[in-house]
Amino acid sequence: MKKKDCIFCKLANGEIPTNTVYEDDKFRIILDLSPATKGHSLILPKNHFADLFEIDEELVADAMKLAKKTAAHMKETLHCEGFNIVQNNGSLAGQTVFHYHMHLIPRYSGDGQNIAWKPTTVEQSDLEAICNQIKY
Amino acid sequence: MKKKDCIFCKLANGEIPTNTVYEDDKFRIILDLSPATKGHSLILPKNHFADLFEIDEELVADAMKLAKKTAAHMKETLHCEGFNIVQNNGSLAGQTVFHYHMHLIPRYSGDGQNIAWKPTTVEQSDLEAICNQIKY
Repeated sequence: MKKKDCIFCKLANGEIPTNTVYEDDKFRIILDLSPATKGHSLILPKNHFADLFEIDEELVADAMKLAKKTAAHMKETLHCEGFNIVQNNGSLAGQTVFHYHMHLIPRYSGDGQNIAWKPTTVEQSDLEAICNQIKY
Repeated sequence: MKKKDCIFCKLANGEIPTNTVYEDDKFRIILDLSPATKGHSLILPKNHFADLFEIDEELVADAMKLAKKTAAHMKETLHCEGFNIVQNNGSLAGQTVFHYHMHLIPRYSGDGQNIAWKPTTVEQSDLEAICNQIKY
């Protein structure tokens, strides 16, 4: 199902021109317009899901298979030396368009990017307490 | 298949104690010892694959289903407000242990993290050229 006024629904379904890298019945992969690196692309499902919490389990698995296939394809065609997959959920996590998407980011020597976080130091007793809270 | 002297093989298979959040026959999820945020965890397959390029298509799909399930579980238990999934391949991309893994990073207001990249400006004619190079 598409969502009215969702820009990524329009892009995924060809209602707005895109630089399309790949398309099938479930997904479109397009170049990001403000790329981190050469070839930075987005996997967009054609149906609307706001995020990881909304998307179907089977579709999210298919998206990941497609990410693997496309990463291998980009490695061959772009000769990238590394690859990041980033999937953000919620504005706090950097999601700016609320239609599920995965960032495929080929990496090159000297590309000037550093997709990382600041590590923190936590006592083992505190880690154990967190673990006990969330283990399932 | 496990790889001799791979630390994540040992962690995934219980040969070294971990803070285990979840375990099944294919995967173990453990708390990261230098977490970005409270609950930052790693999905580790029990068998050894260096990265996204090596891992089986079916297993990578299963890992993503497990990521979705665990993200939902963490949202409920930790009351996080956002969620990042990051999967790095190659030292250039920030991979430090060469055993496939996915970072599950719950996000909270004021957590001080910014998992992002520097956007670049690229002309549409250049995007078109890249698109033509990689479309499939």
